[in-house]
Amino acid sequence: MSKKGMLIVLSGPSGAGKGTLCSYLLKRRPELVLSVSVTTRPPRPGEVNGVSYYFTDEENFKKMVEKGEFLEWAKVYNNYYGTPKKFVEEHLKQGKDVILEIDIQGARKVKENCPDAIFIFILPPDIEELKNRIIKRGSESKESFDLRVKSAEEELKAMYDYDYAVVNDVLEEAVKKLESIIIAERCKVERNKELLELVCKEGCKI
Amino acid sequence: MSKKGMLIVLSGPSGAGKGTLCSYLLKRRPELVLSVSVTTRPPRPGEVNGVSYYFTDEENFKKMVEKGEFLEWAKVYNNYYGTPKKFVEEHLKQGKDVILEIDIQGARKVKENCPDAIFIFILPPDIEELKNRIIKRGSESKESFDLRVKSAEEELKAMYDYDYAVVNDVLEEAVKKLESIIIAERCKVERNKELLELVCKEGCKI
Repeated sequence: MSKKGMLIVLSGPSGAGKGTLCSYLLKRRPELVLSVSVTTRPPRPGEVNGVSYYFTDEENFKKMVEKGEFLEWAKVYNNYYGTPKKFVEEHLKQGKDVILEIDIQGARKVKENCPDAIFIFILPPDIEELKNRIIKRGSESKESFDLRVKSAEEELKAMYDYDYAVVNDVLEEAVKKLESIIIAERCKVERNKELLELVCKEGCKI
Repeated sequence: MSKKGMLIVLSGPSGAGKGTLCSYLLKRRPELVLSVSVTTRPPRPGEVNGVSYYFTDEENFKKMVEKGEFLEWAKVYNNYYGTPKKFVEEHLKQGKDVILEIDIQGARKVKENCPDAIFIFILPPDIEELKNRIIKRGSESKESFDLRVKSAEEELKAMYDYDYAVVNDVLEEAVKKLESIIIAERCKVERNKELLELVCKEGCKI
């Protein structure tokens, strides 16, 4: 039966490792479609346009905002990030499950627009580890780093608005949890009403 | 952190194969505790008292009902079945996840008493298959069989009150779905509030 795909939002404090987790999840579940965000921040070493992000300038980003082309967008650490609406909607219509790996501000906006989406909060194994991961990333200034850590505090409180929380301690286990959440959500009665009605109709012919 | 276990209710039409599914699930997840029901129906070949069921007579069963010793009980096909309350509550308190493999009447009563429980509806792959499985069981009279099939019709409609529906077509896949549902439910924010508050508190010290 053709049915609409699920929108799966992976979010959490910066440095929780959601990017790594997300790329492992996609390797294990190639049927999932990752939404590629548009950003005005400069590419980090190794990042490819159209794969990690679509890189653009502020002027063009603001034009896209005006045209209503984003499902959500936000300014984070002086850069803009946005999720292109058309890409997500088309894949969902085709029955594909789409992953958004976005920051907490963005997730909040998606929650307003798409209450049916699945919201998963990624937690760092502990706070020391959170600091370490940010330091190791090593491509940021002191100011940018301080801003990130301060922001993490606020962000941790956001998890109460999420459906699931996954602690990213052991990568393999965290990925298994994400996979399980996706499989479980596909089994939800509320997501399968049409299919179940068909089965039920057959049953009633006995 | 010690936290309360989850009560997981596996139910569905008779002949959907929930018994087989349940025993495979328990092999794969030995940390799960199966609640053993009390019944007045005679043992089938191979069934051991205290493992498959606690077998008892009607008089004793009714005494247990009067004493309020059941989480749920029901009369199905002229036999009584009940879930002993004490066993379930003690294991949940110890943080163990408890599985109830019960009929739909029973599940309805558990839903009234334990709205936090997880309700999983097991569907037969198709209705022909449902008939075949009942026939193959082969330990029943014609009357008993007809009663079961008629009842299945009513039962299929019950699934809309459940959280999840799992079609028992390929055993291995169906078991994987059950495992995933359990793992996903363990990640739910609403089931981890205490743990998350601890993590959040640590975060706020930065």
